[in-house]
Amino acid sequence: MDTFGRHVVCELSGCDMGSLVDVESIRGAMVDAARVAKAEVREAVFHQFFPQGIAGVSGVVVLSESHISIHTWPERKYAAIDVYTCGTQTDPHAACEYLAKALGALNWVMTFIERGIPQANGQYAHVVLSEQDALAPAI
Amino acid sequence: MDTFGRHVVCELSGCDMGSLVDVESIRGAMVDAARVAKAEVREAVFHQFFPQGIAGVSGVVVLSESHISIHTWPERKYAAIDVYTCGTQTDPHAACEYLAKALGALNWVMTFIERGIPQANGQYAHVVLSEQDALAPAI
Repeated sequence: MDTFGRHVVCELSGCDMGSLVDVESIRGAMVDAARVAKAEVREAVFHQFFPQGIAGVSGVVVLSESHISIHTWPERKYAAIDVYTCGTQTDPHAACEYLAKALGALNWVMTFIERGIPQANGQYAHVVLSEQDALAPAI
Repeated sequence: MDTFGRHVVCELSGCDMGSLVDVESIRGAMVDAARVAKAEVREAVFHQFFPQGIAGVSGVVVLSESHISIHTWPERKYAAIDVYTCGTQTDPHAACEYLAKALGALNWVMTFIERGIPQANGQYAHVVLSEQDALAPAI
């Protein structure tokens, strides 16, 4: 596997509260998001919290190509997700959009990080791109 | 749990090759890194790959405060890690530094993302900071 990958960090706002507490539904959406990204699921782990408020969920799907994570705050209708997939054949942005729709998000912000970029000195770097720059068509 | 969190995305270069293939050693370092970050481990999942080259490891520790992930490329002496911890009492940077040392990294680059920042319109945003800006002492 090439070291190059794209890591999308995304805040989802205005989500459906019920979707953010349902751990089995979230697990299904995360596995489906991996398929949408053209990635392969290797492991999945989810944890439901029972604080004084409404129970949030944290979970991660480990992929052959890296991972997808989610953390939910149902009472805020907010979820923090990140999708990191290596290689150039995968589509982490499509996975983010799929999750946004699955959770009923009304708004989101995304930042893209291109990771594992080999440098001449044998070191590896990353580059941060806005959603606009990352998704602009190549000229 | 407050929605605010800090997410450190880090490339580790020049790591010790042996450290990047040893899944049990990596699992121990990740759990120790959570302790260093003042975070609490809830779940841990690791997967070792057996490609044609040297076997890399992917793994995630789910925390009460979010997660720590790692993906290793032993033949490149490279590891991609990210540490995301919510709240203001945790220290994701300390966890990154701990992992860099545990894996024998010679160089690293880090980007900090402050996540889950509530906006006036009920939406949530994030802000990207360089390592230099993120670690500058408050004036």
